Amino acid sequence: MEEVKVLCPATVANMVCGFDILGFAIHEPADTIYLKRSDKKGITIRHIDNYKLPVIPSQNVAGVALLELMEEIDPSIGFEMVIDKKIMPGSGLGSSAASAAGAVVAANHLLGNMFSREDLVKFAMAGEKLACGVKHADNISPAIFGGITLIRSIFPLDIVELPGPELFVIVIHPQIELRTSDARQILRKEVLLKDAIRQWGNIGGLIMGLMKHDHALIGRSLEDVIIEPMRSILIPRYDELKRLCLEAGALGGGIAGSGPSVFMFAKEKETASKVKEVMQKIYEPLGIDFNIYCTTINYEGVRVV
Amino acid sequence: MEEVKVLCPATVANMVCGFDILGFAIHEPADTIYLKRSDKKGITIRHIDNYKLPVIPSQNVAGVALLELMEEIDPSIGFEMVIDKKIMPGSGLGSSAASAAGAVVAANHLLGNMFSREDLVKFAMAGEKLACGVKHADNISPAIFGGITLIRSIFPLDIVELPGPELFVIVIHPQIELRTSDARQILRKEVLLKDAIRQWGNIGGLIMGLMKHDHALIGRSLEDVIIEPMRSILIPRYDELKRLCLEAGALGGGIAGSGPSVFMFAKEKETASKVKEVMQKIYEPLGIDFNIYCTTINYEGVRVV
Repeated sequence: MEEVKVLCPATVANMVCGFDILGFAIHEPADTIYLKRSDKKGITIRHIDNYKLPVIPSQNVAGVALLELMEEIDPSIGFEMVIDKKIMPGSGLGSSAASAAGAVVAANHLLGNMFSREDLVKFAMAGEKLACGVKHADNISPAIFGGITLIRSIFPLDIVELPGPELFVIVIHPQIELRTSDARQILRKEVLLKDAIRQWGNIGGLIMGLMKHDHALIGRSLEDVIIEPMRSILIPRYDELKRLCLEAGALGGGIAGSGPSVFMFAKEKETASKVKEVMQKIYEPLGIDFNIYCTTINYEGVRVV
Repeated sequence: MEEVKVLCPATVANMVCGFDILGFAIHEPADTIYLKRSDKKGITIRHIDNYKLPVIPSQNVAGVALLELMEEIDPSIGFEMVIDKKIMPGSGLGSSAASAAGAVVAANHLLGNMFSREDLVKFAMAGEKLACGVKHADNISPAIFGGITLIRSIFPLDIVELPGPELFVIVIHPQIELRTSDARQILRKEVLLKDAIRQWGNIGGLIMGLMKHDHALIGRSLEDVIIEPMRSILIPRYDELKRLCLEAGALGGGIAGSGPSVFMFAKEKETASKVKEVMQKIYEPLGIDFNIYCTTINYEGVRVV
């Protein structure tokens, strides 16, 4: 039977000022999923990585997303799925979204692309619900659509693709434990109207900066007065890291999703290399394991290879 | 001595979801200001309308804006200003902004355009401070720049021009008393984070809809979950007015600035006429005086004629 192999990119939700509405895909890291139809009803899952993730479909984010898709057509069909995860769970880089998005894009390919990308986002959101308790789409959407996406509304789902420039993305993932659900609990339920106004000015500026390819405006708009002050305290040496990256020429950046990863944008490759060095220099003496990725925005999303 | 005549357009702040950050200029109504240099130090102001506005410069919004400009160059110069106001004060259509913006644009013309438009906005903001106690720029900016503007940040001032499509704008001004300062007091100082998120999704959608000329997206994004629910209760039959305008084909709309005017966008002229009729039908039986303007977005701003 036909087998499909898909590359499932990491994604960065929030994009500093766009909490719960903006997100973008990057080229590195990326998971690989191999999927084929099976004569046997249901899904079998095998992980060839070392993350010891559950392989019972109803407890696996890729499994749950695929079950949601199968429910829509014919629950009696079967799939065999092999997952090679490179995006570490809990990194803030959309690890669960990559699995869920990859599974449904792969299945859609095998089924003759009968579903729209919006449909696939809806199926994959079931995986996010399993992973963090909330059906959010700010990682799933860029994983499936590629590039930068805006979730204008989650109920009803309204995804808008945001055309932006080529940008270098430097990401550091300090391997400290930080669960999305904990990072959510630290947030206040109410915000000051004056802070909300400042935030929506920045969202407007960021979107216009991206669409106009105005890098200075992008940089000025990468400011978060609401979420970052609360969450950044969970990330070692965050303020210093950010300050030195900006001094090295980064356009701006902040916490990737709910953290602990931190990302920076750079316009040129040389700047990106400098920013990467800065990140290394700060984290090396800390005795925390970390990964750094120096990559670019991925305007393609999950890719069938 | 050379005299200049300027047309100062009405403006609509907030643009539904963009409280304090978005605004746009329209062609009708518009004030006229005549300005010339004078040998006598200081400013003399004459109003040829019937609004009985103060003519002492320090108590007149156009006067205060002009004083701010003069302070920057040479307080000993003099101007004679004649104002013909057509935008009713307290309408929510940027009446004070039109005067302040017109005065400084006219003076700048007479002075050989030595100031940038950002400078002029800063001078004119002194007029807004006099008019409503707050140095806001969401009417001033579109009055001076024309079109649609985003105030990304007020301190420091960061104005971004938003390229948008041609749109018809239908405005009804019910002549009830509603002061900006009162309309501000009705607002809560805190908002729910979930409402703020919904609002910034809509701001993103509106800006992208305008830039992509995607009228359906513009329409979906013209939703305000924070300010409108509080302010609309001050406007007679607001909900019905809005509902019937949408049924007549309006893309969307809401309260103009802090009200009491209400505006609607329409893509086609015929729809705009229908929306105008709907507005008339609802307000005629109420026994409230009202004006209706059926106009378009003014991409030019204050115009020297």
